[in-house]
Amino acid sequence: MKFTIQKTQLNESIQHVSKAISSRTTIPILSGIKIEANATGATLTASDTDISIQAFIPVDVDGQRVISLERPGSVVVPAKFFVDIIRKLPASDVHIEVNESFQIGIKSGSTEIQLAGLDPEEFPLLPRLSEHQTLTMPSEVLRSMIRTVAFAVSANEATPVLTGVLWILENSKLKFVATDRHRLSSVEKPIDCPSDVKFHNIVISGKNLNELSKILPEQNAMIDIVVADNQVLFRTGNILFFTRMLDGTYPDTSKIIPQTYKTETVFAAKPLADAIDRAYLLSREEKTNIVRLTTADDERSVEISSSSSELGRVTEQLPVERMSGEPLKISFNSKYMLDVLKVTDDDSIWIGFTGAMSPMILRPANDSGILHLILPYRTTT
Amino acid sequence: MKFTIQKTQLNESIQHVSKAISSRTTIPILSGIKIEANATGATLTASDTDISIQAFIPVDVDGQRVISLERPGSVVVPAKFFVDIIRKLPASDVHIEVNESFQIGIKSGSTEIQLAGLDPEEFPLLPRLSEHQTLTMPSEVLRSMIRTVAFAVSANEATPVLTGVLWILENSKLKFVATDRHRLSSVEKPIDCPSDVKFHNIVISGKNLNELSKILPEQNAMIDIVVADNQVLFRTGNILFFTRMLDGTYPDTSKIIPQTYKTETVFAAKPLADAIDRAYLLSREEKTNIVRLTTADDERSVEISSSSSELGRVTEQLPVERMSGEPLKISFNSKYMLDVLKVTDDDSIWIGFTGAMSPMILRPANDSGILHLILPYRTTT
Repeated sequence: MKFTIQKTQLNESIQHVSKAISSRTTIPILSGIKIEANATGATLTASDTDISIQAFIPVDVDGQRVISLERPGSVVVPAKFFVDIIRKLPASDVHIEVNESFQIGIKSGSTEIQLAGLDPEEFPLLPRLSEHQTLTMPSEVLRSMIRTVAFAVSANEATPVLTGVLWILENSKLKFVATDRHRLSSVEKPIDCPSDVKFHNIVISGKNLNELSKILPEQNAMIDIVVADNQVLFRTGNILFFTRMLDGTYPDTSKIIPQTYKTETVFAAKPLADAIDRAYLLSREEKTNIVRLTTADDERSVEISSSSSELGRVTEQLPVERMSGEPLKISFNSKYMLDVLKVTDDDSIWIGFTGAMSPMILRPANDSGILHLILPYRTTT
Repeated sequence: MKFTIQKTQLNESIQHVSKAISSRTTIPILSGIKIEANATGATLTASDTDISIQAFIPVDVDGQRVISLERPGSVVVPAKFFVDIIRKLPASDVHIEVNESFQIGIKSGSTEIQLAGLDPEEFPLLPRLSEHQTLTMPSEVLRSMIRTVAFAVSANEATPVLTGVLWILENSKLKFVATDRHRLSSVEKPIDCPSDVKFHNIVISGKNLNELSKILPEQNAMIDIVVADNQVLFRTGNILFFTRMLDGTYPDTSKIIPQTYKTETVFAAKPLADAIDRAYLLSREEKTNIVRLTTADDERSVEISSSSSELGRVTEQLPVERMSGEPLKISFNSKYMLDVLKVTDDDSIWIGFTGAMSPMILRPANDSGILHLILPYRTTT
């Protein structure tokens, strides 16, 4: 293999695939990036067996020649050093040459690097997926759906399936659900796809979806999603992102969503977030994060409060935009509510209560496809 | 105590004094900030017994009333929560009221906070220093002198005196020296002070000087420095910063500075830093950071190289601006040289060598007051 490539293009692709490099792998070949060069361009691949990312750099980008190939071939480069050094090379071009024993020579300006590469034949092959179940959606819709629910997955590896996000596609509607048993977040969006494309019980690691989010284009891009037996492929532009599905059956959460409410409220989102944040600061010192919300008799405000046995007490009156139903005192984990408010872009948020010991539901006032559930603390005071 | 204060002013002073709050103190009163209010203004004090910082907020700032006092007094507030909550209060004014049992009430907008305070009589008094030995210098000169040497102090607490920076004032010249036995950095600047003000063997913790740097005004400010028995006071604007001196006798380092050189070179600083950085990246993988510099026969360039038994080798040719003397091969800790180049603002740097086994000296080409010494590695190859 022998070719010259623009440093900025190479660097961008390295940044993309490097998200799949595990720093703690015990399998040496997986601590590398596979590079293949041929007449069409250069392909970089990295994998930690859980996710695999491939980035392709065509010979010409926007009508400009970015690769000149002298001899096709492939090699596996040691990733950690390669990632760092390419960024810091002095010239705008990088010349890469590999001999039969996988010795790699890299030249840029007056810098020369010799590296011991590995045999590309030993690098795991990417899964070949049947493209039967394929949907296409705008990149920013997928990003936004991931952001809306991924924070609510469980951090507890004892129940692996709950560390993932449940995907359901039915009647051209894509739905995501995440729960850690104390809270649940879900979002549903209409998708432009044939009505016979459908799936249930597909669960993808929340961590992997967050990694995917980082390489999804910001806007004006479509993403293909291929759902196969135990793998899902995300394809956008010149990037392929494979992730394994999580094993196990996702619990049925539909029954815990209340259908009627005893108390309904609408808050301006920013003042609510600020008030909860102040109460959280004190509740954090108690390591409980418990904050209490109490409705006022005139139905025009609520009291937000928290207390710490050592430090003291925070109390404030917060106006509501609308309120109806029964008076209420409820205690909950303020961190959970802050997590919801952080991903809420609407100016107003609707909160429905079903009593002091029962779930509360939060929805952005303008988007009925989004639902967040928080279980209250069962306190006696 | 009862007064109202502008949040931004209070917050700024809290940020200043909070650098003296130890998060791991076993003495409860030291995890607090002492607040005193009287007719002239409000004073905040924090101390971890090693450093103490006091910030004063006058009643009027730039002709604008920032404090309105109803009743003078003082209290110690729990620092960690106080620091966080004041920043997040909703209104631009903060009302603070303390009763006889040190219960603190804080009001801002519709937020009300009750905190358990502590008795200010228990808070340690600031040292009272004789102002006999006082000098005044521009804040930016002090910042720059600290930055030039503080990175070179020892991180090894086994020899406490080497974790500090040595201060010497003599003939109206202030000199700082720092060394960890493998390298040494020093800087000397003329100071406008009476020639009878002088001191020797004053050693101040490098960590404390870095904290001081963070609160020194960026420019156009003078700083008073009061040197007393075992304390040094830095006074600028409305801030007092006290630090203990380190005990012990600082070693005499004057004899290790070479007076003649076998090889002298001048490099453009940026290309040298970039080349060393690339070689460092590989040497880091070996955990030695060893980089080798070899002069070329034509005296117009040097070769910078490093190698890793596992990964490979980085080599590059770096032009020199000037070179004279004997040819040279020398191996050194590249991290030490990067540290020096990071604080070098000059475009060119002079490096004098005294042989492969002897110290090398680095000086910014335009500033003869600065000197950095690095001991080479004694390698046999």
